[in-house]
Formats: sequence, C-alpha cells, structure tokens
Amino acid sequence: MKAVVLLSGGLDSTTCLAKAVHDGRECFALTIRYGQRHACELAAARAVAAQFGVAEHRFAMVDLGQFGASALTSPDIEVPKGEPVPSSGSNEIPITYVPARNTVFLSIALAWAEVLEADEIWLGVNAVDYSGYPDCRPEFLRAFEGLAALATKVGVAGRGAPRIVAPLVESTKARIVGLGVSLGVDYAMTSTCYDPSESGVPCRSCEACLLRERGFAEAGLLDPLVEFGPRYTVHEQESR
Amino acid sequence: MKAVVLLSGGLDSTTCLAKAVHDGRECFALTIRYGQRHACELAAARAVAAQFGVAEHRFAMVDLGQFGASALTSPDIEVPKGEPVPSSGSNEIPITYVPARNTVFLSIALAWAEVLEADEIWLGVNAVDYSGYPDCRPEFLRAFEGLAALATKVGVAGRGAPRIVAPLVESTKARIVGLGVSLGVDYAMTSTCYDPSESGVPCRSCEACLLRERGFAEAGLLDPLVEFGPRYTVHEQESR
Repeated sequence: MKAVVLLSGGLDSTTCLAKAVHDGRECFALTIRYGQRHACELAAARAVAAQFGVAEHRFAMVDLGQFGASALTSPDIEVPKGEPVPSSGSNEIPITYVPARNTVFLSIALAWAEVLEADEIWLGVNAVDYSGYPDCRPEFLRAFEGLAALATKVGVAGRGAPRIVAPLVESTKARIVGLGVSLGVDYAMTSTCYDPSESGVPCRSCEACLLRERGFAEAGLLDPLVEFGPRYTVHEQESR
Repeated sequence: MKAVVLLSGGLDSTTCLAKAVHDGRECFALTIRYGQRHACELAAARAVAAQFGVAEHRFAMVDLGQFGASALTSPDIEVPKGEPVPSSGSNEIPITYVPARNTVFLSIALAWAEVLEADEIWLGVNAVDYSGYPDCRPEFLRAFEGLAALATKVGVAGRGAPRIVAPLVESTKARIVGLGVSLGVDYAMTSTCYDPSESGVPCRSCEACLLRERGFAEAGLLDPLVEFGPRYTVHEQESR
C-alpha cells in the first residue's frame, strides 16, 4: 500500500514516518519548504528519509513566507521564549501558527498522491500539544479527507481518494517519543526547535523545545539531540 | 469588503476579477506559478491586475510541475490539439488536468486571506466547459468552504472564515465573454491557450483556444487577442 508521508524532520513527523514504515507502507516522503526560519529541518528530513529507506523523497517549495504573520516565517516577529501555552481549554492561537499551513501541505501531498495513485496521506499532526492550532484537529483532518474525495480524479471516479492518516493526533508527546524509540527512531536526526543555531543546535527555551523536553522527561528518556547534538549536516544552501 | 481573487490571466479569472471589482470588493489578486508551460499567463495577469487597479497583486510559487502527469506542466506530454472533449455526460478527465490544482490554489489563497482578514476568495472556475475537472464543480467549492471554517483562526473563533465565490461556475463561455465585455475587460490582455508562442500568440488549435473561439462566436463578438495579438509583454524570466 502506497503512502505519501509529510516529513518536516521534526519529532512528530519522523515518528509518523517510522510508524508508516513499521505498518508496511511503501513510503513517499514529502518535505515542504515554505519559507520557514528553521532550515535545519530540511537537513533533518533528508537524514530521516535516508535512514528509513523511503521509496522516494521529494522537496516542494511554496512561498507562504511572503504572507508573513507567523514567528516561524517572519524575521520581524520574535520567536517567543518560555513555557508552552496551556495545551487545552484555551482558544488562544500562538504566534508560531502559520496561516493555513496544513491545508497547503495536505493539498500538495494530495497532488503527488493522485499522480502516484497512493492510498493514503500520513501526517504527524498532534491535537494535544497544539490544541491552539485549528489545522491540527481531527475534525479538520476529516474535512480534508472529504474534500479529497471531491477534488481528485480517483475520488470522483469512485475508486477512492487517498485517506488521511494521522496516527499521533491524540497522543501526548511522551507517548510519541516512546513509540518512536520502540520503532528505532534516532531523535538526534530530528529538529524541533523554532529558533535553532545554523547547524541545528536547539535553543532549549522556545515553546517547541520545552514541549519536547517535557515529553522526553515524562517518557523517562534522554533526548540524544540535546545530549549529543544533531546527527546531520546543514548544507549551506539550506541555511537562511 | 476584502476579497482575494485568484488570477491566472486567463479569460475566466480575468472576468471574475472584473466582476469582483464591479461588485465593490477591495481586490487582492493572487497569481500562482506552478510550473505551467504557458508563462505568458503571468504577463497577462500582471496587465489585467494593473488595468483593474487592484489593492495588491502577489505571485506565489508552488512546484506542482515536478509531479508531472499533466500536459500543462510536463514537457513529456503533448498538448492535445483538436475539438474540445464533450462538455457534459462524460466522466473522462482531460490530460490537461493538473492534479489537485484548485485545492492547492485555494489553500494558498486561504493563507493570504487569513493574514489579510479577507471576507471572500473569488475564483473563475467553470463547471460547464470543464465538467471533466473534478475541482471545478460546485460541490468541491462548497467542501472547500467548509474546510476553511475548520482550518483557520477566524473560522474556529467563530468570526467566519472566508467564503468561496465562483460567479462563473454555471456560465457558458459565451455568457462569460458577454459579461466581461460589459464590465470593460480587454480580452487582448488575457491568455487562454495551452500551447502559445513565447510572446503569447495563441495556437488556435488546442482545446482551450477552440472553447474560447466558440465562446466569442456564440456571443457574436470578435476576440481582440486573435484579431490584434496580445496586449502585454512577456518578460524573459517568465518564459519557459
């Protein structure tokens, strides 16, 4: 069974890819460049895709960065430091939210999936830690799956559009880390930080780093990225 | 009222922009570069946006071309010549279909609309002449509008996500041409051909040219693009 797997090179999408490989999917990894500040994610994605021996790994560019309005793409907006925002009961959406990002990512994945005649699109979104992001919620994913059935040749021909698979959507970070380790993920190959050094060393003070740290702590595991540094090389053309 | 208007520089999207301007919208035109062969569309879009005095005109790149599988993006696939495919009662989808194109376009428009806090996204899709394209159908557009409400900050906050407006979806080409002329569209500024010359002269034998020709004929009007040639200049960096 063929699956397009969205792979940012972060902790969640890497674990998602490991799960798809473990579940016997033939994986086509797709990494989107969208003007993100943290370009070391691209190097991480390359290392992870190679480790898991995906059938193919593609990079697709889309310039969402030009629309601004997120700390992840706008040089004018500082990446916030300190404790994560409350993970539930809050309607506040963090400044690190990128407008319509997952809608755009899933659309591009859908284009490739249609060409590949893939059965599934996997993504590592998570509604627990990122409850403030509208496009990480199960109801959004179901709506996209419905859209895919109307948007594609295979869908309208009744042969079945790609299903959207988000195996981590209800998991805590600790459970995600535990799952990944059991599936052989080397988390030194990943990149989570919103504000890393050029070579991918995490800042350990942004909200993404703190969530990750708490996840490893709750899972009772050490984070090899923090202990040993990144296990990939950021090429010059990938730096900001 | 603010509207993001998808503007390819073709006949339909240009007429759609004219209608949005006529209806009093503050228009933000968005042209997507997706690896299309017919780069003179970009020059056409620029000319049209300037003529209608849009508030802003942006170009966004997304490399759908790499996924291939359409005559509009793959140098390996010939643009078919000859009579248009039957416009109704056929389940056949033409080779000029670009996988998930309108899903990707609407997603990028949604990202900009969210940043602008726009009320609407307009697009010139048409289900009559392009009944073979799944993502030109009203049910697809309604599904995307539903998705937008779940995908965005404004949607989940209950302040209303952008509405999808497709004023030409049920119109014949003749009616679209008639509407555009009455709204002051100069169709010599548009580009419809799937296989034009570098400077934008239409081939007059591909399916898009034939549909356009029939539209002008049925409306009892001359096509100034055919009569006088394109009224825009294709810059070198925009050619293939």
